[in-house]
Amino acid sequence: MNATSLPISEIAGIVGRDNVLTAPEELCCYSYDASRIKGFPDCVAVPGSAREVSELLKLANRARFPVFPRGAGSGMVGASVPRLGGLVLTVGRMRRILELDPDNMLAVVEPGVVLGDFQKEVQRHGLFYPPDPASLPFSTIGGNVAMCSGGPRAVKYGVTRDYVLGLEVVLPTGTILKTGTRTVKGVVGYDLTRLMVGSEGTLGVFTRIILRLIPAPEGSRTLMAVFPRLDDAARAVCDIIRNRVIPSTLELMDQATLRVIENYLPLGLPTEAEAVLLIEVDGRERLLDEDAERVSRICAESGASGVEVAHTPEEKDRLWRARRSISPALRQIRSGKINEDVTVPRTRIPSLIRAVRGLSERHRLTIVCFGHAGDGNIHTNIMLDMGDPDERQRAEKAAEELFRTVLDLGGTLSGEHGVGIAKSPFFQWEVGEEGFRTMWSIKQALDPLNILNPGKMFVPDRAFFRSR
Amino acid sequence: MNATSLPISEIAGIVGRDNVLTAPEELCCYSYDASRIKGFPDCVAVPGSAREVSELLKLANRARFPVFPRGAGSGMVGASVPRLGGLVLTVGRMRRILELDPDNMLAVVEPGVVLGDFQKEVQRHGLFYPPDPASLPFSTIGGNVAMCSGGPRAVKYGVTRDYVLGLEVVLPTGTILKTGTRTVKGVVGYDLTRLMVGSEGTLGVFTRIILRLIPAPEGSRTLMAVFPRLDDAARAVCDIIRNRVIPSTLELMDQATLRVIENYLPLGLPTEAEAVLLIEVDGRERLLDEDAERVSRICAESGASGVEVAHTPEEKDRLWRARRSISPALRQIRSGKINEDVTVPRTRIPSLIRAVRGLSERHRLTIVCFGHAGDGNIHTNIMLDMGDPDERQRAEKAAEELFRTVLDLGGTLSGEHGVGIAKSPFFQWEVGEEGFRTMWSIKQALDPLNILNPGKMFVPDRAFFRSR
Repeated sequence: MNATSLPISEIAGIVGRDNVLTAPEELCCYSYDASRIKGFPDCVAVPGSAREVSELLKLANRARFPVFPRGAGSGMVGASVPRLGGLVLTVGRMRRILELDPDNMLAVVEPGVVLGDFQKEVQRHGLFYPPDPASLPFSTIGGNVAMCSGGPRAVKYGVTRDYVLGLEVVLPTGTILKTGTRTVKGVVGYDLTRLMVGSEGTLGVFTRIILRLIPAPEGSRTLMAVFPRLDDAARAVCDIIRNRVIPSTLELMDQATLRVIENYLPLGLPTEAEAVLLIEVDGRERLLDEDAERVSRICAESGASGVEVAHTPEEKDRLWRARRSISPALRQIRSGKINEDVTVPRTRIPSLIRAVRGLSERHRLTIVCFGHAGDGNIHTNIMLDMGDPDERQRAEKAAEELFRTVLDLGGTLSGEHGVGIAKSPFFQWEVGEEGFRTMWSIKQALDPLNILNPGKMFVPDRAFFRSR
Repeated sequence: MNATSLPISEIAGIVGRDNVLTAPEELCCYSYDASRIKGFPDCVAVPGSAREVSELLKLANRARFPVFPRGAGSGMVGASVPRLGGLVLTVGRMRRILELDPDNMLAVVEPGVVLGDFQKEVQRHGLFYPPDPASLPFSTIGGNVAMCSGGPRAVKYGVTRDYVLGLEVVLPTGTILKTGTRTVKGVVGYDLTRLMVGSEGTLGVFTRIILRLIPAPEGSRTLMAVFPRLDDAARAVCDIIRNRVIPSTLELMDQATLRVIENYLPLGLPTEAEAVLLIEVDGRERLLDEDAERVSRICAESGASGVEVAHTPEEKDRLWRARRSISPALRQIRSGKINEDVTVPRTRIPSLIRAVRGLSERHRLTIVCFGHAGDGNIHTNIMLDMGDPDERQRAEKAAEELFRTVLDLGGTLSGEHGVGIAKSPFFQWEVGEEGFRTMWSIKQALDPLNILNPGKMFVPDRAFFRSR
């Protein structure tokens, strides 16, 4: 498939000449996401309406070319990368907040609305849209819905899935469909809305999204607790939640992470500690000090050697600085990393981290664990020098062993990044042959010619990639 | 299809002779649900495991007979009624709580566990499983998941869908599939779990259900507010929620409801008022009085002529007595009713109730509105004498007009009861031809021979029923 094989003039006839890109320097901007996976499109179209998206997909079915929907390209697994060439369909012209209805606490947005912008707008009305992936300053809500984005606040507030009430979606064949309701309750027919959420652009292109909003919390408190022993930190995580305080974030950093950060930016972190918990509680102002106190006490009782509570915005900022420094710090120690967002039931966190230490020693790799301990979503970063084939091979081996361990612990291979291309070789490990076949039968029912975002999720085995 | 055409001995070979029912007096118990819809099965099987369910479904595909999964038969729309004869498959032998894990706040149950029993068990661990359909003393969790049950608490806590993490489900072809995760986060593949929730027994038979639990609230307060004007009550509903107090229940009773109750049981209800709100706030003990006070104040500011706060369990019980008396009171005034659980965005409640008043006058019918105002789920009960064909016809006409109104108001035809047989003639009104076709294509992909629960949801038009 190459540019000349795409019916460019017909595409331009649908979206307008100005909204078609074919110059290599333009196409280049649509050839990657936040993973290292690349794929060059033959053409990029920027439709401005559901009708235009529909016409493009009907054309694609007639002319048999693949279509790759794309938001901001900030995904972590290559789910929007046009690995097979073809047409990239971006939502950059559909970025209006169509409705913000404080009384019914809902919003209707186009898919290209940037998450961070939306959250600010919502906040102006005293409302709150919780999902907070790290990409929030630039990722689009359409992309968030396609990937079912999570974030640190999921422990208390859930993930994107929990806030999508309904969709206008263009199916792979070009049919424009409205799903869901404008109400929290609604049980008429199959839940196509949630089938679409997290379908990674393989089942439809969203053109309108109805989102549920909630009242904004009145305030928050931030704490940091230092644990000489990792197991104690993990126990504290469970104890806090069982004591009826659900923190809005409950982040863990393991010893390897603390050392990497401290090496990059001397903050005086306790590098001899096995783990640190960074905890935020939010809600009604009247309860915050009591909640912070309760969390402090539980941490101390679970074996924390010290707990610090931030009382000013400056103190809060200082506590968060360590967490925010992780990414730049990691970039300094190695050129590459495999970032796996594996997730296990909360009580299995110690087993997971111990297993990771074993992998680290056995394969002679630096592996740092940090992330959303409250919901068991531990980002496991296998550091590697991209130019070192031996290290790369060892890292890939370690990742495979990590996945086996996570599944043995009753966990999932991805809590928030998804499958895309990066995890497709391991997709069947988790969903099984029957799950794969069932999902594929749904894909075929909705996209008989496999036009929309092919080459994602459904890849039989690793050989698919080795052969490319 | 009749009993002799079912391979009874093969069915008995799978589940054991003792778990097959064929005597008419036994079959009779499986011929109805809580609607007035009836259908006599040819045979009832009571499988004890996923393997047995799988074998039954494989046999049904070979021998081509329909299979109707059934929990407690407490549904409101005939979704479990074997309208076409065939085999009823009940989950009565699968009723164990397999796991209750307070640390990870989840439970694994078999489908036949009774909701109320489960909630009591969960409570013993200081935890909470919120969905509370009125059928909770007898309905099964399997049935709740199949129908995505709601209840009064949905305004704060959401519906069944929000608590199902994963399933073991036997697909219509007999394939045993595990879906979802044991964690709140999990984005590997399509969300088959939520596709199954609310699929009304047409896509699979659940054999294990993984449920998310939350910490139990410390306490609650109950209030009753009397509104001379309905619009003021509706505005109060929005104002309460906007003021960051999400009540655990926010029930409305309109004037017609108050009069029917008072006529049945003189409680001294304000029958001259256009509406009464029954409100419960729950959560942390320290906030409850403040929250109750805040809600009282908002009601008063919105035009309530009086607000009563219950301070003792007896007072609380007295306030709830009116709400609980509705069903018996309604039974006294007419032999039948059409109970429509329509749902509209909160702000459209006054428009809905005004439209209902119009229907009531135009069609000379008693119609009472009450229910879950907090989430816009207003149960609209059209009272009728089953023996009066004229009244029945007027009631059916009024129901049709009600549905048009609800859709015009941006609502849904069913907030919690589902489609089943009762609402299948109107299914396409809401989901449209495209929605119907898309859902049907998924049904066909998973159930090519239409073995599992046929005749539900997907019925082209009313003529289907008139001809039977």
